Amino acid sequence: MRISAVYPGTFDPVTYGHVDLIKRGAAIFDHLYVAVLKNTDKLPLFTVEERVEMLEEVVRAFRNVSVTTFCGLLVDYAEKVGASVIVRGIRAVSDYEYELQMAMMNRRLSARVETVFMMPAEAYSYLSSRLVKEISLLGGSVKGLVPPGVEKRLKKKHLGA
Amino acid sequence: MRISAVYPGTFDPVTYGHVDLIKRGAAIFDHLYVAVLKNTDKLPLFTVEERVEMLEEVVRAFRNVSVTTFCGLLVDYAEKVGASVIVRGIRAVSDYEYELQMAMMNRRLSARVETVFMMPAEAYSYLSSRLVKEISLLGGSVKGLVPPGVEKRLKKKHLGA
Amino acid sequence: MRISAVYPGTFDPVTYGHVDLIKRGAAIFDHLYVAVLKNTDKLPLFTVEERVEMLEEVVRAFRNVSVTTFCGLLVDYAEKVGASVIVRGIRAVSDYEYELQMAMMNRRLSARVETVFMMPAEAYSYLSSRLVKEISLLGGSVKGLVPPGVEKRLKKKHLGA
Amino acid sequence: MRISAVYPGTFDPVTYGHVDLIKRGAAIFDHLYVAVLKNTDKLPLFTVEERVEMLEEVVRAFRNVSVTTFCGLLVDYAEKVGASVIVRGIRAVSDYEYELQMAMMNRRLSARVETVFMMPAEAYSYLSSRLVKEISLLGGSVKGLVPPGVEKRLKKKHLGA
Amino acid sequence: MRISAVYPGTFDPVTYGHVDLIKRGAAIFDHLYVAVLKNTDKLPLFTVEERVEMLEEVVRAFRNVSVTTFCGLLVDYAEKVGASVIVRGIRAVSDYEYELQMAMMNRRLSARVETVFMMPAEAYSYLSSRLVKEISLLGGSVKGLVPPGVEKRLKKKHLGA
Amino acid sequence: MRISAVYPGTFDPVTYGHVDLIKRGAAIFDHLYVAVLKNTDKLPLFTVEERVEMLEEVVRAFRNVSVTTFCGLLVDYAEKVGASVIVRGIRAVSDYEYELQMAMMNRRLSARVETVFMMPAEAYSYLSSRLVKEISLLGGSVKGLVPPGVEKRLKKKHLGA
Repeated sequence: MRISAVYPGTFDPVTYGHVDLIKRGAAIFDHLYVAVLKNTDKLPLFTVEERVEMLEEVVRAFRNVSVTTFCGLLVDYAEKVGASVIVRGIRAVSDYEYELQMAMMNRRLSARVETVFMMPAEAYSYLSSRLVKEISLLGGSVKGLVPPGVEKRLKKKHLGA
Repeated sequence: MRISAVYPGTFDPVTYGHVDLIKRGAAIFDHLYVAVLKNTDKLPLFTVEERVEMLEEVVRAFRNVSVTTFCGLLVDYAEKVGASVIVRGIRAVSDYEYELQMAMMNRRLSARVETVFMMPAEAYSYLSSRLVKEISLLGGSVKGLVPPGVEKRLKKKHLGA
Repeated sequence: MRISAVYPGTFDPVTYGHVDLIKRGAAIFDHLYVAVLKNTDKLPLFTVEERVEMLEEVVRAFRNVSVTTFCGLLVDYAEKVGASVIVRGIRAVSDYEYELQMAMMNRRLSARVETVFMMPAEAYSYLSSRLVKEISLLGGSVKGLVPPGVEKRLKKKHLGA
Repeated sequence: MRISAVYPGTFDPVTYGHVDLIKRGAAIFDHLYVAVLKNTDKLPLFTVEERVEMLEEVVRAFRNVSVTTFCGLLVDYAEKVGASVIVRGIRAVSDYEYELQMAMMNRRLSARVETVFMMPAEAYSYLSSRLVKEISLLGGSVKGLVPPGVEKRLKKKHLGA
Repeated sequence: MRISAVYPGTFDPVTYGHVDLIKRGAAIFDHLYVAVLKNTDKLPLFTVEERVEMLEEVVRAFRNVSVTTFCGLLVDYAEKVGASVIVRGIRAVSDYEYELQMAMMNRRLSARVETVFMMPAEAYSYLSSRLVKEISLLGGSVKGLVPPGVEKRLKKKHLGA
Repeated sequence: MRISAVYPGTFDPVTYGHVDLIKRGAAIFDHLYVAVLKNTDKLPLFTVEERVEMLEEVVRAFRNVSVTTFCGLLVDYAEKVGASVIVRGIRAVSDYEYELQMAMMNRRLSARVETVFMMPAEAYSYLSSRLVKEISLLGGSVKGLVPPGVEKRLKKKHLGA
């Protein structure tokens, strides 16, 4: 059995929490598509191209992971690339409820795609892209929260350097 | 990559919620071990042998599922059978928190075994072995909640028939 | 339309939280059956007779409330007395999940009985029979938490007076 | 005792989850006012008139349900139409907390109006107007999630047909 | 040991829930800084100056409480004023998760500042600045929810009087 | 202002999660009483004397911490030793609700004692005495979860050595 999985997200920007989950997903599925959502209405800090670039620096270490983008329904994208699994990270209870709701709906939209939930390492349980952007904006250090390439780009964005 | 998974539980008795999860797990992992926990201190209604028997009637339909038993640490058992994944079903928030705690602890006990969470169909989201036993004991019908073989055995237990 | 409702519970003993809910239930349903569960396996502090007695002192003030007992399935009892509603109080999130699970199951056992949830006054949001028994056992005052008749009986139980 | 109830909401648009709750509310209260909130600051997809129209197609089947609109405080509206009950659906834990907060506040604003919570069928537990709009916008099918009239209108909105 | 604490917030406007927490914080810490956050992107109803003014009317009663403002990282501000404790109020589960996430992140940003959580009185458990503004805007009375000075200012804002 | 605090618990046995909280509590209160609850009905693994002994090995490093025991109401004990604060650790949502309920009740029993909640380090967020005992009983290693003295005693208990 060869099982491909999609790990979808906004990744604005990628954090060590995401990296941790990519590592865990890559260890149990034959191929992992890290898929950047394009049609979000939230105004992102980084363009889709920048986000793909930062992710690609990160996934270079894994031979069975590729970075892609998608718009439209997630299950349609999963079916298109032949993935039968959607990987989602769960942390807090509030996450969890929203995730379950989405998973239920995705199951209804396609019975051929299954959602599995995985946990990031506890050190990253409080980490989110939103928090990283907030801290960076307020001049705090995000070392240890995001890969060095992301750290550099965040500084540039906020300092206009 | 060949990935085996363990789906551990007490299965006292197996419900359609468990069956649903077995089906989902069998679809994305190469082999699924449905593993009955032996060393529980809760007094079970069915013996380990009866529980294995009921599960075996159920898994007959899947070619990559086998029923086993284990005692001791779950991660030790997973490593022994060469499984790198533990499958757990999640429903309610209270489940979820206990499950996360166990998963974190299991990760600490062995970094080689990863826990993934899957959702049963929403029709089974309120279903539990405990509730099934309670209803059966009070004379209610459990048809549609458990496989026919389990239904028969429950009646026998409670009626002494 | 004439709607009767059942408010089931262990009431071991009745607290002001229960009384508050009885008042609210009595205000919107034509008749409210406060139904003491008989077949619990938890060892109660008060006998069913004592619990009925304490409740009867309380419901005397309401003309459309009666105290009863039941064993077996709650929905069977509701149908027997012609009630189409089960009233349950909700407070904490943990309550809520268990209550939803029970309500889903009861709906499955009988589509003719609907569960509605009501909130006690916030002053009673932290109150439970268990906590009242614990405080009383440790010699604390339960004045303001339970009706005077219950307070007296609790003292008697714990002092053997 | 004659009890009228208000079931308030944005209904942008009405889903089968709402319809399920209307059916349950209509079964236990003498009259049910399905009340569309007018003064929301969220930009709706459908105008108040369109939402009322879609609801009216739905409630035609019930003899004791009427569709209305309101602005201002919900409890003021309830008192104005002589309703002593507010009906709210609850699904996830996050819903539940917000709902409890609103119910507590409404109770403070008027002690004459009581909030009762009811559960939609589990098949609709993951359903929300927001999700329906999202799926429709992304070109997914919402058949089985909303009444046919709503389905048609959603298509028209998103295709500009 | 002399321990100063910071109680940060938007206070738009201060409610009796905040006042309750200020009283509790002032009772166990040597000095309490009630610190109004300046760099919020949410559009506030009251200016920072108005919010400080309303808070100052309230804290006059406490000899070890002062009202201040801050921008930038909270932990930087705490260190600047020599506070080793951040005080946060917790009510609902959803609050709690966000609060834990923030506290974890703040601990990471500075190990010299500890977050402690305290509970407002249960009468204020459903109270929030947002709800107060909503009720006031809809013409409802906020007496008993906010201090008289805030009540007056809210009326002025909404009536343009 | 001189503030003493009580950190109550069963400590059966003390874990590094407890030690972490003791360290945090000792840093912000003038004196911290680590108080072992005597009148629990749960059958403990270690006697009160053993639990006190293990705690004393741990608190030796702190000059303002002492180990004590108590029975009866916690607030009565706090008042007796002149403590105006109860310190409790919170982790999961389920903890949190029980803790809030207890804190509300304790506040009602004595308005002179305030409960504050603190978070253990995230590395200990999944750690509990129950889990430690379970792992040890099943032959797993608890190194890094409990102090060395506790580890030794656990082995002795379970091996009868």
